[in-house]
Amino acid sequence: MQEVNAGLIGLGNVGAGTLRILTENADSIAAKLGFRLNVRAVCSRGVAKLSLPPFAPDTLVTSDWREVVSHPDVQIVAELIGGCGVAREIIDAAIAHGKSVVTANKELLALHGAEIWDRSIAANVNLAIEASVAGGIPILAVLREGIAGDRVTSLFGILNGTCNYILTEIEQHGTPFEAVLAEAQRLGYAEADPSADIDGFDARSKLAILTALAFGERIEPSDIYTEGIRRITPVDFQYAHQLDYTIRLICSARQSERGLLLSVRPALIPRSTILASVRGSYNAIWVRGCYGQDTFYYGRGAGPLPTGVAVVSDLMRVAREIRSGSPDRVSPFAHERLGEYQPISVTAHHSAYFLRFRVEDRPGIIARLATVLASRGISLDAVLQIPSENWRDLPFVITVQPATEAAIREAVAEMATQDFLVDSPLALPMEAGL
Amino acid sequence: MQEVNAGLIGLGNVGAGTLRILTENADSIAAKLGFRLNVRAVCSRGVAKLSLPPFAPDTLVTSDWREVVSHPDVQIVAELIGGCGVAREIIDAAIAHGKSVVTANKELLALHGAEIWDRSIAANVNLAIEASVAGGIPILAVLREGIAGDRVTSLFGILNGTCNYILTEIEQHGTPFEAVLAEAQRLGYAEADPSADIDGFDARSKLAILTALAFGERIEPSDIYTEGIRRITPVDFQYAHQLDYTIRLICSARQSERGLLLSVRPALIPRSTILASVRGSYNAIWVRGCYGQDTFYYGRGAGPLPTGVAVVSDLMRVAREIRSGSPDRVSPFAHERLGEYQPISVTAHHSAYFLRFRVEDRPGIIARLATVLASRGISLDAVLQIPSENWRDLPFVITVQPATEAAIREAVAEMATQDFLVDSPLALPMEAGL
Repeated sequence: MQEVNAGLIGLGNVGAGTLRILTENADSIAAKLGFRLNVRAVCSRGVAKLSLPPFAPDTLVTSDWREVVSHPDVQIVAELIGGCGVAREIIDAAIAHGKSVVTANKELLALHGAEIWDRSIAANVNLAIEASVAGGIPILAVLREGIAGDRVTSLFGILNGTCNYILTEIEQHGTPFEAVLAEAQRLGYAEADPSADIDGFDARSKLAILTALAFGERIEPSDIYTEGIRRITPVDFQYAHQLDYTIRLICSARQSERGLLLSVRPALIPRSTILASVRGSYNAIWVRGCYGQDTFYYGRGAGPLPTGVAVVSDLMRVAREIRSGSPDRVSPFAHERLGEYQPISVTAHHSAYFLRFRVEDRPGIIARLATVLASRGISLDAVLQIPSENWRDLPFVITVQPATEAAIREAVAEMATQDFLVDSPLALPMEAGL
Repeated sequence: MQEVNAGLIGLGNVGAGTLRILTENADSIAAKLGFRLNVRAVCSRGVAKLSLPPFAPDTLVTSDWREVVSHPDVQIVAELIGGCGVAREIIDAAIAHGKSVVTANKELLALHGAEIWDRSIAANVNLAIEASVAGGIPILAVLREGIAGDRVTSLFGILNGTCNYILTEIEQHGTPFEAVLAEAQRLGYAEADPSADIDGFDARSKLAILTALAFGERIEPSDIYTEGIRRITPVDFQYAHQLDYTIRLICSARQSERGLLLSVRPALIPRSTILASVRGSYNAIWVRGCYGQDTFYYGRGAGPLPTGVAVVSDLMRVAREIRSGSPDRVSPFAHERLGEYQPISVTAHHSAYFLRFRVEDRPGIIARLATVLASRGISLDAVLQIPSENWRDLPFVITVQPATEAAIREAVAEMATQDFLVDSPLALPMEAGL
């Protein structure tokens, strides 16, 4: 029985999880494939210090990735280092050596995925990227195969587990953002420098990849309007709950007649929607198609073993294809290239909005704000105020009927000049249609 | 550019949905594949009466399925008739003619799936069955590819939309089962003969297929303990809600040391679990793996277009494989054949239980029932009674601490002889671990 050999580069969290699954679960993997998938080489900078499982005697264990990509028996290289530096060199070298590549590298794929795909197609090797988005959720297999016959019209994701953990902690315990973040850092759920997570950039990379595959377009991450969760407070959840909504960091991509509307931002979503039941560090993706209507996918967004499952499943798929001859491939980043990809500005977004103000209380405030809204043609829907004695920093909420983001921004900018404001107004879209 | 040609047999709901997607979405499908997927033949008994989309001039339109399976240009046959009669003949004939097969036929696959797979492998053709389970949810692509690297340990599904619609209507409006069923039949959501749905047999077929693929075993549907929803009443939901649970028809498959424990039955599930948010005619599957932990998949379980997406996605996958040479294939019904498949009796099930009684009220009832439970070593957990004046038919609930189904059945059988009972006790497992 002809076997297929893989080489793993990087034995951090994801690499260690991948190696454990490939080793422990080897018989089951062989039974599913009908042949064995071997670990022929592993590479880690600190390889001497690691305790590795017992390998077959001919397994190469090295700290030099070049030995893996040039190894004559290695057919698939798994790049599990991450980032846009050496990882890029490894992938380019592997493709140049005629090896197929499996990678979990979201930053690199979000920025250069289309180009790397084109190179792999030109070199007649395979590229598999399931682990780059939403760890344990096989959303790319779903888009590539499971619902390939559909046309996706919109997609909503909770793609950053750290943000979702922080938001649900604020929601459940009423703890302020800073305190929850500090606790998350202490527990190792958040990085010492948390910006990539809480300012939305990690989620943006994942949305860029997901959107590219769902819509067949080459997305520039910088085209995606991105807003993090730093300004969300416990009182925002209290008001959201009064409206029977909750707040999540929502990555969204919607096809419109004018183009694709992309954003990563905190938004109100109805508590009755299944997305609202995504709590803690879980991830989820809601996909709406022309034909299949709504489907929803949920699971662990990160972690060595859930992400390792994605890497191993990709290795198995690529190994199957290597055995059966390379298939015709079409870059998933470009199947709709003939259509015009027009990222449209977030200012075209149209929905109801939740406007939260913090004011020094005095008579006439609502009248002043309502006048600004009316002057922009924005209809006020409700004014909510939870009783409070703190008249020097009183939070309250105005919800408005559907309007464009452009109109809301202009109104907010005008309202922000009012001297009774303690903080600039916070405007969150209300995603009623989920 | 070499094209791939499909023939569709059966133009009922699913066939019509499939044809519509293949026609309307043809350009997008071709863009994803890199080649065109043509409808080269269609067959329907009443084809003369149908209004069909305009076909290419060389499309065969016939009422004789034999013309489709023997057509020299047809490479993939989609069998969309259903049932175990002529559908079986069509699939066998297609394989004998060297055609790959796509089918949505759950009854046939549940009973003879392993055998049909073996024949297709022997004939070196492909067999694709995504549409046979949970319509628009690509759960088979997930199990086959997306999480192939994992080992599934348990799986819980809501796989019958009619039952889920009926249960959530009872839950939301307090309407009795018979009235909801009659209304569902009037609206076309339930069949004139509803037994296959409400007695759990449709869900059982789907669970048999899903379990076969998830665990790599050949499952006999008759090994699956099956209980329908006819006995569920509005008051059961009231009591379940007091416990912060709800009730759904749950298809479950769990790996244990002794074997696979399979059942289709109404069960209590916590209201906080994401499965509890599956309402109306939606389907969902919860999968637990050794490595990837929990993932969850949700969508339309039926309908011409969602099921059509599954058929078209399968046609695309098979078409890709035809173009790239046939891959090594392993029957998904048998990848774990070396392990011993032992279906274990549902009497080994172990959990807390919800026991609902309807009694003619008199003193001493709880004492009598508690004595029976105690004599079997079953610990009573709570007694719940919603105030009622109907002492001739008073419902109340006893919950008990984890016990085996065998012990519960013996206790229920003994309790059923008590003369104060208006109806035999209803015992539902409480699935706290979801």
